[in-house]
Amino acid sequence: MPTLKFAVLPGDYIGPEVMTEALRVLEHVAKQENLTLSYTTADVGGAGIDNHGKALPDSTLALCKEADAILFGSVGGPKWEKLPPKEQPERAALLPLRKAFNLFANIRPGLLYSDLTDASPLKTERIPNGIDIVCIRELTGGIYFGLPKTTTTLENGEEQAVDTMVYKTSEIERIAEVAAVTARSRGKKVCSVDKANVLETSVLWRRVVTAYFAKNHPDLTLSHMYVDNAAMQLARDPNQFDVLFTENMFGDILSDEMAVICGSLGMLSSASLGTGKNSLGKPFGLFEPAGGTAPDIAGKGVANPCAQILSVAMMLRYSFGLDDIANKIEAAVRKAVATDGVRTGDIAFGKKSVGTKAMADAIIANL
Amino acid sequence: MPTLKFAVLPGDYIGPEVMTEALRVLEHVAKQENLTLSYTTADVGGAGIDNHGKALPDSTLALCKEADAILFGSVGGPKWEKLPPKEQPERAALLPLRKAFNLFANIRPGLLYSDLTDASPLKTERIPNGIDIVCIRELTGGIYFGLPKTTTTLENGEEQAVDTMVYKTSEIERIAEVAAVTARSRGKKVCSVDKANVLETSVLWRRVVTAYFAKNHPDLTLSHMYVDNAAMQLARDPNQFDVLFTENMFGDILSDEMAVICGSLGMLSSASLGTGKNSLGKPFGLFEPAGGTAPDIAGKGVANPCAQILSVAMMLRYSFGLDDIANKIEAAVRKAVATDGVRTGDIAFGKKSVGTKAMADAIIANL
Ligand SMILES: CC(C)[C@H](C(=O)O)[C@@H](O)C(=O)O
Ligand SMILES: CC(C)[C@H](C(=O)O)[C@@H](O)C(=O)O
Repeated sequence: MPTLKFAVLPGDYIGPEVMTEALRVLEHVAKQENLTLSYTTADVGGAGIDNHGKALPDSTLALCKEADAILFGSVGGPKWEKLPPKEQPERAALLPLRKAFNLFANIRPGLLYSDLTDASPLKTERIPNGIDIVCIRELTGGIYFGLPKTTTTLENGEEQAVDTMVYKTSEIERIAEVAAVTARSRGKKVCSVDKANVLETSVLWRRVVTAYFAKNHPDLTLSHMYVDNAAMQLARDPNQFDVLFTENMFGDILSDEMAVICGSLGMLSSASLGTGKNSLGKPFGLFEPAGGTAPDIAGKGVANPCAQILSVAMMLRYSFGLDDIANKIEAAVRKAVATDGVRTGDIAFGKKSVGTKAMADAIIANL
Repeated sequence: MPTLKFAVLPGDYIGPEVMTEALRVLEHVAKQENLTLSYTTADVGGAGIDNHGKALPDSTLALCKEADAILFGSVGGPKWEKLPPKEQPERAALLPLRKAFNLFANIRPGLLYSDLTDASPLKTERIPNGIDIVCIRELTGGIYFGLPKTTTTLENGEEQAVDTMVYKTSEIERIAEVAAVTARSRGKKVCSVDKANVLETSVLWRRVVTAYFAKNHPDLTLSHMYVDNAAMQLARDPNQFDVLFTENMFGDILSDEMAVICGSLGMLSSASLGTGKNSLGKPFGLFEPAGGTAPDIAGKGVANPCAQILSVAMMLRYSFGLDDIANKIEAAVRKAVATDGVRTGDIAFGKKSVGTKAMADAIIANL
């Protein structure tokens, strides 16, 4: 069995709390499965700003470069909210990390167990069996990084700002491949979301995706949808999707809409995979919960650790190729929450709830 | 009382069906209120393509230029879906109309009567009193019209597409004014939505909006939210918003998410106001239902005419300054649907429903 060499970036507020439990679960599994763990913890986000003057300290970046994967917590919160938007911890940590490691593929499961439909804002009759979709978001292209990206003063004294959305064929093809592979392991349906009635980038996106699937994945079902309609359909009937596939900006918006519809951010994790391979020949990746730092409940020991634990599972699957162990962790979480009914406050619906540590204990007991 | 001179563009499928009823309601009100109506009907959308080879025929555009407002139905459908995205009726009719008349301000009420909460995909306990918010969307700037907007072939043979998002101070200020005026007539709260942690245009947007409100509307409550969070908050708790205010692309996505959360597209209308004044010194505007052409129910006489009738009310309010009559129509619709319980199939929840004409009759009876 390989040595798992990864960087641990817990971040701020509940970040370290849920990370502690996720690592405890992983240590337990490692013992069972004879895995050797080799990880180092470093500051990121607000902790980076406070301790090193930078949301992504050089030492943290260096550590990540030595590793085969990054296990990320969450960053930001009221302590740093007075900073300008672009210096805020989440942005100032995540965007450079995505760029440094070419993390072009964001994979976000939209999963709601059928036992937890009460947690969704959607009427239960719309999702009687819960929700089970996946959002694939392009993460290093589009309007996030396109140039020019400038603000200038016009001759009449007004200011004018410009952002540029850019995509080229190869960028679209490589993320189309991720969508296809994901769909192949599931319902074999990909819905590609764009705004081809308005955007040139979307016209290219639609054309490249269509050609790529026709050539390489003709057996998968590919459909196209405009982004405004996708925002409607997600809230109407999320399970009409299998794999929802889109560019960076649209994915930012739709994946968050999907997450909230799935009821508890505390249950959702995500993977951001790079173009590069790690020392095991697997994709280098960053794995993180979908939710934030929850400052209101930080320090109370009540945060839901499931999303962070599920991030560990995704790391094992994608960056270490340990699918069976990933499945085992996911099954243990599901059993603890759904069958055993052990739940943190965010998914207890006013019934008896447990703390962060007890939630992890219940998961460990199922491993 | 003034003469109401407007162009009627019914469009496709159910477009003409609901337009007939909306005009019948308006004729009724005109008689009561001593208004003179002067309108001409013209083809647009698919009807434009079929009869004149163009989604926005020159003759239709000329007619609109003679008018003080445009009452629009809805356009598009399966008959034209094989056309390339940019030639599809909705896009090819609406974008040139917006550009021709500088329709920079899209005002979309997100209204769900408390009696209709069953129609929303959201759990009733999230919206016990229905929904009452408004989305103000910038409609002629941003990435829809910014240049360059091109596709080129790179040296290595790949294609690359570019779209450009541009905003300048004056464009932001004039739509901020619309948001402020709207909020002033309601809950006095504006939430401005941007992506200032990533986009230059959003940094400028946030800065200009903040300064504009501080200077001109210091008594209104202004807050800012990132677009991904707004997509979550809309689905979690829509009534936390009063006026939701954003740029073109974000508004396209969020206003549709808002609409679906309000349950029935058949109940939602919108106004798109121009920078220019009509012959009465009021804003020239285009008024249309939020929903589409509903090809599946076209020709059956069962479509919900309320959205088109409410578009008439918005036209009277914004382009003709007839607030009292607009209010009267809105009250008649509300009473018919909520109090009288007269409903078309889309809002009948399996109970007894009426057709398009009977729905309009019930509204007329309340006038
Ligand atoms: C922090 C921000 C830059 C980031 C994004 O917009 O991508 C975040 O919202 C996300 O989705 O991971
Ligand atoms: C048809 C399309 C160009 C249009 C838009 O994106 O603005 C439509 O979706 C709308 O919202 O009115």
